[in-house]
Amino acid sequence: MAAVIVSAARIYVDGAVKKDLALELGPDGRVKGLVPRGQATLDLGERLLVPGAVNAHSHAFQRLLRGRTQTASRTDDNFWSWREIMYRAAGALDAEGIRVASRQAFLEMALSGVTTVGEFHYLHHAPDGTPYSDPLAAARAVIAAAGDVGIRLCLIRTIYLRGDFDTPPSDLQRRFCDGSLEAACAAIDALVKLETPMVTVAVAAHSVRAMAIGDIRAAKDRYRGRPFHLHVSEQPREVEVCLAKTGKSPVALLAQAGVLDKDTTLVHATHLRDGEVHAIARSGATVCICPSTEADLGDGLGPVRELFGASVPMALGTDGQTLLSLLEEGRRLEMHARLQHQRRNVVTRNTGDSSAKACFDAMTVNGARALGIDAGKFEPGSIGDFVTYDLRDPALVGCDDDALVAALVFSADSRAVRDVCVGGRLIVRDGKYTRISEHSDSYVKLTRQLFG
Amino acid sequence: MAAVIVSAARIYVDGAVKKDLALELGPDGRVKGLVPRGQATLDLGERLLVPGAVNAHSHAFQRLLRGRTQTASRTDDNFWSWREIMYRAAGALDAEGIRVASRQAFLEMALSGVTTVGEFHYLHHAPDGTPYSDPLAAARAVIAAAGDVGIRLCLIRTIYLRGDFDTPPSDLQRRFCDGSLEAACAAIDALVKLETPMVTVAVAAHSVRAMAIGDIRAAKDRYRGRPFHLHVSEQPREVEVCLAKTGKSPVALLAQAGVLDKDTTLVHATHLRDGEVHAIARSGATVCICPSTEADLGDGLGPVRELFGASVPMALGTDGQTLLSLLEEGRRLEMHARLQHQRRNVVTRNTGDSSAKACFDAMTVNGARALGIDAGKFEPGSIGDFVTYDLRDPALVGCDDDALVAALVFSADSRAVRDVCVGGRLIVRDGKYTRISEHSDSYVKLTRQLFG
Repeated sequence: MAAVIVSAARIYVDGAVKKDLALELGPDGRVKGLVPRGQATLDLGERLLVPGAVNAHSHAFQRLLRGRTQTASRTDDNFWSWREIMYRAAGALDAEGIRVASRQAFLEMALSGVTTVGEFHYLHHAPDGTPYSDPLAAARAVIAAAGDVGIRLCLIRTIYLRGDFDTPPSDLQRRFCDGSLEAACAAIDALVKLETPMVTVAVAAHSVRAMAIGDIRAAKDRYRGRPFHLHVSEQPREVEVCLAKTGKSPVALLAQAGVLDKDTTLVHATHLRDGEVHAIARSGATVCICPSTEADLGDGLGPVRELFGASVPMALGTDGQTLLSLLEEGRRLEMHARLQHQRRNVVTRNTGDSSAKACFDAMTVNGARALGIDAGKFEPGSIGDFVTYDLRDPALVGCDDDALVAALVFSADSRAVRDVCVGGRLIVRDGKYTRISEHSDSYVKLTRQLFG
Repeated sequence: MAAVIVSAARIYVDGAVKKDLALELGPDGRVKGLVPRGQATLDLGERLLVPGAVNAHSHAFQRLLRGRTQTASRTDDNFWSWREIMYRAAGALDAEGIRVASRQAFLEMALSGVTTVGEFHYLHHAPDGTPYSDPLAAARAVIAAAGDVGIRLCLIRTIYLRGDFDTPPSDLQRRFCDGSLEAACAAIDALVKLETPMVTVAVAAHSVRAMAIGDIRAAKDRYRGRPFHLHVSEQPREVEVCLAKTGKSPVALLAQAGVLDKDTTLVHATHLRDGEVHAIARSGATVCICPSTEADLGDGLGPVRELFGASVPMALGTDGQTLLSLLEEGRRLEMHARLQHQRRNVVTRNTGDSSAKACFDAMTVNGARALGIDAGKFEPGSIGDFVTYDLRDPALVGCDDDALVAALVFSADSRAVRDVCVGGRLIVRDGKYTRISEHSDSYVKLTRQLFG
């Protein structure tokens, strides 16, 4: 790719909306610097140019569940009944299906302003649980899907070793399960060799349910320095079972085992117990919440106020893919906390930032931190992935520069997305993605095979 | 307008998505019936055709606050500090400004799939509080704005008689305040004479703060049979003050005064007390909640589960205009309740409907009920306003007919809106609105005058 100097009517830099600036990107898509708008080689017009959003927690294939888990009327429906439907969809997908479903999810993300996705990948084996002859077949399908769309990928290769505490995997869980920690690590080591500027590899322990704490510690030690993710305390039941089985809650168990540090990201952290917020804060770990999924699944409202109060970096994920817009996740971070605490500006505690800036940081720099990449801001040397939003969109028109990012976070949706640039390449231009029909056609074909 | 038989690949009728049907509209835009798709005179292609959304509670001019109340970092920000900013914006608007700001809000609504708006209109006088020489000047500005856009309007003419219990209006409240109940009723009676098929008139008592209960009862009696709206119990403080001043909570006070019946709509009803849900249910009144505003302002989580459990009809409003999408309000109705109760399908209690259908009904038929119009469903004689959504939108593609309305409510946004038809006239066609630039230009000019 050639170097480019790109500009728009407004650019968001250092927490403020500025005009008369252009972003200079090197041939590798990294930021060289900011220069006067007059030097631009590509001017995108009446748009607001911002760092692309980072989706720090995704299970792409769950796009297949869209709408399908909302049709029941049973009032005993909950996370666990949802999980059974999810397992059934997962159980029907081969590697090519994973590629097609992931591509559709990544495409929808890109068209909503996401430039990097952290894919918490745990569909490792064939639908019946048999390992593929190529142990990386499913991971390669996810990597190919990201490449098809042009989105940046952090493949979070998830280790999954048992069904639950003391329980072997069920038939439906078998395709998620690694035969052993060594087999999982061998796969991770092989994946690391496939890293490129557009595809990095992180490691996850699925949860304290799915791995013994000794195995989690061993995995963390082996990959220390690399981003390390875990699902933690999403549902009260998993906390109770962990307490009953180990005498400790999940976060306490992980803290004692030395698993929490600045490279660790705890996903959800909804049902924390006394003292756990401070254990997380002391460790430097990131918390990634998934507001729309936690609403969709009835997980509940977590200690967002306390986490911000303790200066824990907060990232965001779309998780179950009911919604694929980081804008809606961003506003829900603050709006759910306002509902919970009956006040405004909950996430500004301890920083002096506006709630809009705190939410935008969660959508960008904090997500990049969780995925171990240097993106989400326009600083020399950083990854320069960006998105533009139409200043004439009905959601944004008439907002002055001071109010613009707040209007973007709290009031805009994917209709306002105009251009999406990843790795120096404009994958969405003027709101259009060139291969949308081709990707959607194969996705529709897949859904017909799966659901008739 | 000529009669038309309109079709699309899918039509939502009687709670189910159907194909091979067309909607026959008479020259008045009312439904004549459903006929085979082959008889269509206008086929809109690969789209889902549904009844247009009804926004049952709007303060259109508050679109001017977009983004501006989210920039503070003060942690003591709340409903009451927000209200000061709102009063200042209101205080700067003349009648022409009301028209321009309302038009922009109505335009954004239409482009998000809203076909009818219930405008809770309370900006009656000049900015300094002096009555206009034409007492209907401000109301005429709202009516003109709706006409400019082509959206259906229920003008909810609000009576406002004092600042608070025992308190005269403050300087900032003076332009909202009617000089007397008789003056307010004279204005309402004059407005009723302006009713057309596209503009109807309803009555509101602003709140138990802004009117003595005797005046509320007198107004209700005078306009019995007409939709009658009130803000009620949005904030704990107003409930406490009402208890202190009257010995009763707002709903109890209204119930005892005979103000609650099937034509009454209570807006918010967030902080209800024991027994109030059942008092509302017995009366047949509608509750209109405004989920995104109640989140934005930190109002809190109301008794949605209990209201659905008692079969109270629930409508939706965008209120403060931070968000102008009934789709997002619709999903928040259920998703906020899921967060609150840690289960799924909260709004399906007592009906056997899916949560998606319950939310869609709140967006449509229940909103129409609150505004006293026969819309929101495709039944012979009903108002046939409709919206189409792109079945190839990234949010909807691949969803089968059973999952489609759930995907629309829980996963789509305004990007998917294609056509909007009001009163037999297509005001949005293929996602485009012809006068968008003209309306936005005057809105931008207004914001520059107001905010410099």
